[in-house]
Formats: sequence, C-alpha cells, structure tokens
Amino acid sequence: MAGNTFGLLFRVTTFGESHGGAVGAVIDGCPPGLELNENDIQPELDRRKPGQSSLTTPRKEADTIKIASGVFEGNTTGTPILLIAHNNDARPGDYNNLKDLYRPSHADYTYYAKYGLRDWRGSGRASARETLARVAAGAIAKKLLRKELGIETLAYVQQVGNLVTDLDPSEVTTEKVESSLVRCPDPEASKKMVSLIESIRDEGDSIGGVIVGRITGVPAGLGEPVFDKLHAELGKAMLSINAVKGFDIGSGFAGVSLKGSVHNDPFITDSSGRVRTTKNHAGGVLGGISSGETIVFRVAFKPVATISKSQNTIDHLTKLPAIIKGEGRHDPCVLPRAVPIVEAMSALTIVDHWLRQRAQYS
Amino acid sequence: MAGNTFGLLFRVTTFGESHGGAVGAVIDGCPPGLELNENDIQPELDRRKPGQSSLTTPRKEADTIKIASGVFEGNTTGTPILLIAHNNDARPGDYNNLKDLYRPSHADYTYYAKYGLRDWRGSGRASARETLARVAAGAIAKKLLRKELGIETLAYVQQVGNLVTDLDPSEVTTEKVESSLVRCPDPEASKKMVSLIESIRDEGDSIGGVIVGRITGVPAGLGEPVFDKLHAELGKAMLSINAVKGFDIGSGFAGVSLKGSVHNDPFITDSSGRVRTTKNHAGGVLGGISSGETIVFRVAFKPVATISKSQNTIDHLTKLPAIIKGEGRHDPCVLPRAVPIVEAMSALTIVDHWLRQRAQYS
Amino acid sequence: MAGNTFGLLFRVTTFGESHGGAVGAVIDGCPPGLELNENDIQPELDRRKPGQSSLTTPRKEADTIKIASGVFEGNTTGTPILLIAHNNDARPGDYNNLKDLYRPSHADYTYYAKYGLRDWRGSGRASARETLARVAAGAIAKKLLRKELGIETLAYVQQVGNLVTDLDPSEVTTEKVESSLVRCPDPEASKKMVSLIESIRDEGDSIGGVIVGRITGVPAGLGEPVFDKLHAELGKAMLSINAVKGFDIGSGFAGVSLKGSVHNDPFITDSSGRVRTTKNHAGGVLGGISSGETIVFRVAFKPVATISKSQNTIDHLTKLPAIIKGEGRHDPCVLPRAVPIVEAMSALTIVDHWLRQRAQYS
Amino acid sequence: MAGNTFGLLFRVTTFGESHGGAVGAVIDGCPPGLELNENDIQPELDRRKPGQSSLTTPRKEADTIKIASGVFEGNTTGTPILLIAHNNDARPGDYNNLKDLYRPSHADYTYYAKYGLRDWRGSGRASARETLARVAAGAIAKKLLRKELGIETLAYVQQVGNLVTDLDPSEVTTEKVESSLVRCPDPEASKKMVSLIESIRDEGDSIGGVIVGRITGVPAGLGEPVFDKLHAELGKAMLSINAVKGFDIGSGFAGVSLKGSVHNDPFITDSSGRVRTTKNHAGGVLGGISSGETIVFRVAFKPVATISKSQNTIDHLTKLPAIIKGEGRHDPCVLPRAVPIVEAMSALTIVDHWLRQRAQYS
Repeated sequence: MAGNTFGLLFRVTTFGESHGGAVGAVIDGCPPGLELNENDIQPELDRRKPGQSSLTTPRKEADTIKIASGVFEGNTTGTPILLIAHNNDARPGDYNNLKDLYRPSHADYTYYAKYGLRDWRGSGRASARETLARVAAGAIAKKLLRKELGIETLAYVQQVGNLVTDLDPSEVTTEKVESSLVRCPDPEASKKMVSLIESIRDEGDSIGGVIVGRITGVPAGLGEPVFDKLHAELGKAMLSINAVKGFDIGSGFAGVSLKGSVHNDPFITDSSGRVRTTKNHAGGVLGGISSGETIVFRVAFKPVATISKSQNTIDHLTKLPAIIKGEGRHDPCVLPRAVPIVEAMSALTIVDHWLRQRAQYS
Repeated sequence: MAGNTFGLLFRVTTFGESHGGAVGAVIDGCPPGLELNENDIQPELDRRKPGQSSLTTPRKEADTIKIASGVFEGNTTGTPILLIAHNNDARPGDYNNLKDLYRPSHADYTYYAKYGLRDWRGSGRASARETLARVAAGAIAKKLLRKELGIETLAYVQQVGNLVTDLDPSEVTTEKVESSLVRCPDPEASKKMVSLIESIRDEGDSIGGVIVGRITGVPAGLGEPVFDKLHAELGKAMLSINAVKGFDIGSGFAGVSLKGSVHNDPFITDSSGRVRTTKNHAGGVLGGISSGETIVFRVAFKPVATISKSQNTIDHLTKLPAIIKGEGRHDPCVLPRAVPIVEAMSALTIVDHWLRQRAQYS
Repeated sequence: MAGNTFGLLFRVTTFGESHGGAVGAVIDGCPPGLELNENDIQPELDRRKPGQSSLTTPRKEADTIKIASGVFEGNTTGTPILLIAHNNDARPGDYNNLKDLYRPSHADYTYYAKYGLRDWRGSGRASARETLARVAAGAIAKKLLRKELGIETLAYVQQVGNLVTDLDPSEVTTEKVESSLVRCPDPEASKKMVSLIESIRDEGDSIGGVIVGRITGVPAGLGEPVFDKLHAELGKAMLSINAVKGFDIGSGFAGVSLKGSVHNDPFITDSSGRVRTTKNHAGGVLGGISSGETIVFRVAFKPVATISKSQNTIDHLTKLPAIIKGEGRHDPCVLPRAVPIVEAMSALTIVDHWLRQRAQYS
Repeated sequence: MAGNTFGLLFRVTTFGESHGGAVGAVIDGCPPGLELNENDIQPELDRRKPGQSSLTTPRKEADTIKIASGVFEGNTTGTPILLIAHNNDARPGDYNNLKDLYRPSHADYTYYAKYGLRDWRGSGRASARETLARVAAGAIAKKLLRKELGIETLAYVQQVGNLVTDLDPSEVTTEKVESSLVRCPDPEASKKMVSLIESIRDEGDSIGGVIVGRITGVPAGLGEPVFDKLHAELGKAMLSINAVKGFDIGSGFAGVSLKGSVHNDPFITDSSGRVRTTKNHAGGVLGGISSGETIVFRVAFKPVATISKSQNTIDHLTKLPAIIKGEGRHDPCVLPRAVPIVEAMSALTIVDHWLRQRAQYS
C-alpha cells in the first residue's frame, strides 16, 4: 500500500488503469513560479505513445494530457498539480478471451494473489499505460531542472537482443537519439536493431534490451547517505518501470573484476578550480552522493511478456491447463518507447534530491 | 535528508559514525510478542565483523550489540527497539595523514560538497561500520519472517574478480556458505577465490565480485504495484550497501537477449493445487509482486576503494595535487563480509512488505 | 510541501482550487473488495454543498463526483481511487474587485508570502471548496468502517454564537441532526440558532460556533503511542478544516479544574466480560489509544472571514490602506455545512489507524 | 505503528521506556554546521526533571543526556544525532503492587488491548519520561531557530484548577516564568497556584491547568495548505504530550461567539513597510500559514491520573473489581514541568516547517 507515490518532496502520485476512466498524476511539492502549460508535456508523451512507428504496437491511446489544477496564469502556484488523460480506446471486449487465463510473465496472477480479485481489462493497474503519468510528471521535473540548474537527462537504446552499440555515452545527443526509429544514436546499430525488431515482430515474438541513462549538470552534493543514496534511488526508479530486471551504474557489473587501483577515479583540480576526477568508473556518484561528474547508468529490459504466439498457462477459476492465444496488438520491443520513461524517472529522482538538499543545507 | 530510515512500517533508522560514540538503529513498528535477546543478533554480527579471517581487515571493532528498549521480559513490546554498539577501537590518530586528502573513490569529497564540512575520522557516516546496524536490525527481521511465514534469506559469493561459480542457487545451503572462508558454497571456486584474494591482499590492492541473494518461502502477493515494486525495493536496498554498483533479478541483464516466447514462465498447477511456474526467469516477482517462486537476484560490488598502494589525488584545502599513501588495514575483498548484509537487507525489505500487505488485505 | 496528503496507510491526497479545472482526491491504500459507486458518496456531498438552505451561501457549485479509477465491476480493486469533481460555476470575474486586496483574516496575504504569487480567484487552494474532496474520501472511509467494524461517525452543531445545547452526545441521532436546518439535534436550540444566523446574515456579518464529533464502535487498541496518539491525529484532522481554531476531547478545557480523583474514570467489567469505564472523562482515548468507549470531542469554528460589511485592509501592490467592499455570496455561519466535514475527517483518521493496527498486530 | 517519529524533514524518532535501558531520540535532518554540545541541552532537561521543587514528584531520574553521534569537533555534521539518557533509578519493585491492576485513566489497559502484552514497570512507553527525549531534541531545534531566524519559543502556566492569570502573553518573559515555582509569570497568581498545588499534594490528589505557548519571530509563509496547516501541526504536537486534552489558537474557543466583523484582523502596513494586522485574533496563523504575527495558543492539561488516594478498578487477569492503592511519588500538578515540553514541541514543529518551506521556495 502507498506504493503509488514517488518522491519525498517532489511527490508524484499516479492513478488509473489501462481501461475505463482516466490515468494521471498529482504532483505535490512543485516549486511555485514555473511557467507551465500542456505544451511542455505533450511532446514527451508523444515520444512514449503507442502507434508512433512500425516498431510499436498499432494500438491507439488518447495520450492527451490536461493540467487541471496547480497552475494559474501560466505559472505553477506551489499547490498540487493534477495531470489527467482520459482513456478512450477502451475496448475491454478485446480482453474477453483472456478473462480467465493467467498470461505468462504478466501480473495477472500476482495481482489476484495480492488483492483477491481480478481486473482483467488490459492489465489494469499493471498496464504500461501507467507510465504515461510518469512521463507527464517527468516533463515538469525536466523543465524545472533545466531552468534552475541546467541539468539535462537523456536516455538511449544501447542494446536490443544481442546487438550492442559501443558508442560512448558522452557523444550522444537528443537529436541523434530521436533520428533513430529505435532511439539508438548509432546509425549502424540502429539499422540492425530495426531489422531485428521487425523480424521479431513478424514472428509474433518479443525481444529485450538495455537502455543507457545519462544525467549531466548535476552539482556535487545531491543524494543522501545510507539508505537513500542517489544511485539507490535511481535504481529503484528504474526497476519500478515495467519489464525492467536490472540496473547498474558506472562500471557496474563489468567493474567487479577490476582491481581497486584500476577502478578508483583519481581526483584532480581542473583549470577553473573545480574538483573533478580523471575518469568516471563511479558513474557520477561517490558514497551515494553526486560528485559533479556525469551520471551514467544502464537499465535492463526483459522481452515484453505479451506475444502473439500461443503459450501454456492455466485457467484462473478451474486451475486447469489452458492454451493462451496470442494477442494481435503488442510491442515487439518496448525499448524505443521506454527511452522517455527512463528520462522521466531520472528527472523525478534528481528533482526530489535537489529539494531535499536545499531543505537541509541551502 | 531523512535518508537514514528504511521501510514504511518496519522502520529502521540507523545512526553513528565509524569513530566516537556509538552506532546502531531504532526499529519502529516491530510486531509485539517476538521472543528476542542479544543472542538472536550477535551471531549475524559475528559474520559481518572485521578480523574474522585472513581475508578481512585485521582491524578490530566492538561489534557487541545491546538492546536498550522495546523488549520486556524477553519479548518485543511493539514499541521502538534501540540497538546500540559502542565504538571502542577509536584511533582517530590513524587518520591524521588522511585529514586533508580526498581518498579516491571514497565519499570524502562528496560529503564535503554536501554538508560543507568534513568528518575525516575513518569515513564518518560513510563508513562500512554503519552496516553493523543493518545486520542487527536484519537479524530481528529474519527471526520474525522465519517464525511467522517460514521465510529464509540466504546469500553467497558467486563471483570474485573473474572467478565465477555456476552453482545453481537452489542447491546452496547456509552450511555450505559458512564452511567457505569467502562464503562461496562451491568448494572448488572457493579455493580459487581465496587464492586470488590473498594475492590481491599481498599486492595491497582490492577486488570486487558478485553476491547472489535468495529468498525462499515468500507467499504470492507481497510488493506494491507501480513505484514500490518488490524488486525495485530490493534493488534499492542492495544498491544502498556500500560499494554496490549493480543489481538484477531473475534473468536480469542476461535475459535481455532472449525472446519473449523463451523468457516467459508458463503457469501450471502443482499437485497440491498451488499455482506455480515451470521455470523462474522472473526471479520470483511478476509485475512487482511476489509470485510464490523463490526470489533470486545478483548484487555487484566494486573493488573497495581503500588500498595500500599510493594514489594520485588532491588536497582538500589547497586543491593541489597530492599523493595519498596507502592505509595498512583494509579488506582486499569486501564480499565475504557483505553476505550477511545482503541477507539483512533482504529480510528488512520483505518484512516491511509483509506488514504493508497485512494492513491492506489481511 | 507535501501538505496535501492525509494518512499513512489510507492515504488521501487532495488537489484543486476554487475556480478553474477540478477538485478531488486520490486515495491510495483502500482495501480491495469494497462495493463502491458514486451513490455512496453523493449524499455526503449534498450535505456539504452550498445553496442547500437559506442559511448557506446561495452560490452554486457542481459538487458532482466521479470515480475515475480504482473500482472495477462495482468493487474497489486496492489500487488508487481517483475522485474528481469539475468546477463549473467559475466566475473569476466576480473576484476582480478583490484582485489586489488582502481580505482580512483570509489566506490571501500568507499564500503570497509563502509562494511569491497570488491566485486571486476565490481563495484558490485555500477555498473551502477543497473540503469537497475530504467529504468524498471520507464517505469511502465511513462505508469501510461501518462494514468492517460497525464504527459510526456523527457530528452536530452544539453552539452557534452564545447559543449552546446541553444535549448529551449519546442521545443524538443522525435523523435528529439532519432534521435541523443548522444540524443541531436539539429542536429548541436549533430554532434559536436559525434565528440568530438569519439575523447575522441580514446584517451581512458572520458568526462562529462549536461542533461535537462522536465516534462509536471503535475497538480498544487504535492509535499510536507518543506522537501519533489517536486524539492528536483527530485534533490535527479537525484543526486542518478551514476556520477551525480549537479542539478538545473528553473533559477537554473544562476538565482542567477537576481533581484527579474526580476526573479519573474507574474501570469495571461489564456483564459481557468487556472492560469498560464507569464514565468517560477521557473521551474514549487513554494514553493516545482508543479504550473502546465512545470518542467524543469538540471543534471550535471562528466566524467565517468573508462578510458583506466593508473592512479596512491594504492593497497587495501599493501596500496602501484600502477599503474592501463586502461580497454578496457567503455563508453567515459555516457550521451546518461543516458537520459532514467533521465526520469525514473523523472517519479518515480512524480508518488509517485501523490499518496501522492491523499491520503491526493483527 | 511508526508513531514514534515527529516531523517530515527535521525528523525526531524517540525510544525508551520508563524503566530499564535508556530513553532518547535520533534526529535525522538537522542542518550541518550548528555548534552543539550537551550544555546546549542539559539546562532544558533540568527544567523538566522531577524533584526540582516541592511541587513535583520527589522521584529522582538520571536526566543526563549524551550526544553519541552526528556531532564532530563541536558542530553538527548533517548526519543523525543520537541523544541518549540511561535510566538508573530503575526500581521495578516499586510497581509490583500495580502489576496486575489497571490504573484508572492510565494507558495500562489500552496498551494491553493494543499489543496483547503488558509492560507494568512504571508506565513503560506511556511514561512521561519519554518527554525527556522531546525536550532534548527541542533544545537543538530552539538553538537552530534562534540562530537562523531569531525565533523564540516560550510557554507559561496560565491556569491551575480555577486560578487563572489574565496577564497578556506579550508581557511575559522567560525570566518571569522561571522565577515562579509553578512557571506562572504573574506573581500574585503564582503564589495562589503554589498554595493550591500544595494543598492538592497534601490531599494526595492532582489538579490540571492550562499552559500558554508563544512563538515570536516566525516569518510569514511557514505552514502548508490543507492538511499540514501550521496550527494543525502545532495542535497535534501539543495533543501528543501526556495528559493534554485540548488545544486552541488565537481567539480559540472564546472566539466562536464573536461576529466576523469583530473577529477579523484588519491589515495595515507598518512604518517599516511590513504587512501587519492591527490585532491578532488569528493567533499568528492565517489559512494555516504563519502571518508574521506572534503565534499564541493554549494547551489544556487534565489532572494527572496518578494519585495517592485509593481508587476502584479491575484486575488485569481476573477482571474482578479491585482497589488500587495510591502510589507515594507523583506530581500533584504536571504543568510546571510541562512548560519546557510545550516549548520543545513548538520548536520542533516550527523548525520542520522552516525546512519544508526552504525546500519548496527558498
């Protein structure tokens, strides 16, 4: 319970299911005086929305957001901001055939185990449609961070299946990311990834991958010692995105086989007198607190569970074996659409820690 | 701020620095009526404490815990439990040579950037000594979970440097783990790891590795949709441990290259009528909620930053380049001592979600 | 910041201003399986809404609530419930004459001091319209408490100006309350109060009063030691209602002049073996924890600040003295409409502590 | 559960029972760089401690506080501060005669109902000894507020039994308060109160009263709209103190019979250009947010439950009627010792809202 809120001071509470009613978020704690209207948000939602390319589900969703409180005469007032999108592609009939089956690797069964009842329309609250609210809230966080601190969050697809780009994160730009259908800024790799996803789509199957997140401009000093270390909070933020199974920062899993003398990042003073490190195995966080270096992390996405192929499962009521027939509309690879979600969760994490730091030591 | 508390309902607040005074924890929200005394806690602390083998730092610490409130006539009362250990190997003099230098890949600089002052004794609040409090609190969580739900948490060293055991997590027992100096339950791999760590120690260097965490007996239904997904909370818990740079669950980073049809875990009904899956790529969590299958995850530890070799850095005051001379007492590989910490954080995460579930739907 | 959420486990976050957009609440943590539709909520809103009698403001508001998430097939699902009412009597033009004046004893100035900007429509977030959301959320809490524990919350007007009824709280029924235009269950006193309010209204003035809250059926054991004592939480809940300036419980302010030997409530065992007290100076709470006796408290409301008479104030921009001209539409006495708000906040407080107790010791 | 923490950003968690072990607090979120040592705290504890005059219990308690973490070289570091006092007048034997009886108007029964077990030593966690931790934490908050904002908290006894001073709160000084044995700054009233308490003491009885709290120097803008209104938080803080049954602010219960035209506080601009009100019926808070005027409130204390007279009650085990024999050592009137507790809770409330405001809009 109470798992629908993110952040201590920039507090985002999301609501809504995949079908019926509305989805959205209430943001409590946004500083007053930020210029804001729906146009600040909609472009981010368009990056997330289904049907944007041949690689995503053809399902149409009404990803049109409305700001229904907390803004007056074009500025945030400091009071709660309601962001709301009404659902209007509600075709619960589509799901009648799934009503009594547990879809493998979906949350159908675990929700039932948790709540004792079953919302079989789409995935109910477990639907990826919930991430719309995150992206909308994240757009506000992004704008605030850019304006106040010059912080930029960026994400891109590094890997799809076994295809990996070795592009250095520091060379990536938003333009390069957005010019790729899969949001991989390496044109060669991008082309291969598109082919792979198309063939996976045609098989009626799905494939996973890795997204890299990068945050630049974070001043040294954000993050809290002990439990709320900045990378622990970032990790939680990323792991809370649907289909994410892993997170690492800086050298991450690859760094475990290095020696300390190789792994450690020596300090230097740069020409402007700022404390820097000569390299960044740390990924921008030391002892849980931002070092002023670029924050770089990786997020592992499993292949999405929804596929067109038939699968073995059981019936919810009889508990007898059953065959689940594939659904027509699904994303063969969720990564291109997940890029703005990773950016949104990055921004929500950082903005919260910026306010926390400002409270204690401003 | 407020980063020193873990959990919503089984709420652990830790305090204390590496030197001076005391370290410990206050637990608010422990159910009443649990039999508890210091002997329930001390064995776990002994697994964590320095100086326990030739592979760990020879530094001695007074890891003797005292329960100073919240227990009456041998049972928890439901009121806050104070766990406290006094520091008595306080030799701040040892650190005089480090007083003005930023140790590479330590938190010295970031703490200074955050708070505007510097506690140069040991690592102050960033010291691994803080984990003593986690292990102590975790011992209570473990006892509660075992008694109430039959849940067991276990961790072991899977990798040191490039040495990896391919032992199946389901075959591991506490006995096997504890019989190994490095807490690797695979005798062959263990032997090699010991050799590697000894040679690293003799070089004055350090090395990282991977710990596997396993939680058995968790009923289906724990964890919260959306932000507080069970694996997101586990991930945060693990990433908050000193030196951790990565976390994945189930198929994790390796699963991204699988197809959905291969990755998905089909449901079956077992002979006792219980809903199960035929395999466990999910790692025991579906949609953020426990499925009743064993929870299995990996935690990546970087090589510890403290080494005996000389390193380049800068002076805190002058910001001029400086050479930091190695310290005599350090762990060449933190993983053997981190095993009980991983178990403790596992138990603290699960116990909190058990209470959360009980509140909403009991 | 973060002041728009009430409750730890039954968590209500409200949003919305008096004009423009919408007002409402998100409830996170409601147990699943509660039958719920808008008809469970609307009757409570009708008790709160303006224009319901000659004693309230003639202003019309669209107090029509919609449940937009968290309910499926007529039952709560355990996921966030969005309650939303759209504003449609928005006539910001009405407030043009107030745009630059600080209304005495309103929040105009303090909001400006807090946020550095001014939402001059109605009272923005400080408007009593926000209480609509509380009443809507409270209706769900009431239904849950009634169904699960047989708990009933009731409130009534005890005092208007100097007119006081000495009716014993135990004799009051909802029917008696609702049969009175002022929601005072004592017909004699009610008649006098109506006359008083009518004359105050005709003067263009306002008057305060006292509401008594009563909660029956609360089992012994709810409430938390130390800071979250049940009556401290009830007190906060009541003091957070617009225009409330005081709260006491049981013997309250009157009890301070009694001797302990008179004030103390002796324990007895009743015929059914239940532990009771022979009287209830405590007001149903001992040491911050419910005793099983009826909870009885008083809430003091100041006269509402909005009156038709002219008043001295200053101009927001010039800071020069100004005369504020009275507004046409206001409540001469807010108490009749505040009765359902007191009941709602009572229910929200109790339901949260019920879940808290269930989590720790069920 | 989780009821042992106060504050969102200046977070105080208290622990400890009346007997055995220790009592104290952990403060998380204190800004770094505040000069602090035990001498900043001890004088406040001395004002609270038992045995300080003929009017208080002759019981001796070891109210000696130790700072065991969070301070380095005389300054707060920004990390958790452990404040701890060891119990050493532990004579549980004193309570053997009470072991099986529910003391009337004490928390014995309700704690049992809540937790299913009974800590019969003193009052366990319900003991007034817990307030030692509040006063210690409050001393830090007081120092911080004084240094950073020039805010001063002050409290005094306004009423004992029926004896009331009509002294204007603005005329009171700490010196006047401390020069009175009962902490009533009106010498005439003080003398009468002393006599009254002495006669109550000699009867073996107890008596209640009212404490006035005053906070000066609070800037306009502190407090949160809606649920966390500044006076709602102050009210909760006060109502959480043992024996408190009521709270009001500004005109409070007396103001309900005034007309709005009389009650409203007109705004003016003072000679320095500051926005002020010509009077302060509001008590320094408008719409839940501080107005810059002095905050003034009243706190009602019931007569303490512990008396020397015999009383009727029941036996915990048999549930049969029993006579409880009076205890020798008790406070006939708790108010003189409660004055520093009211000040401490005032300071803790204000300091938390100062940090909250600084986070959102600094």
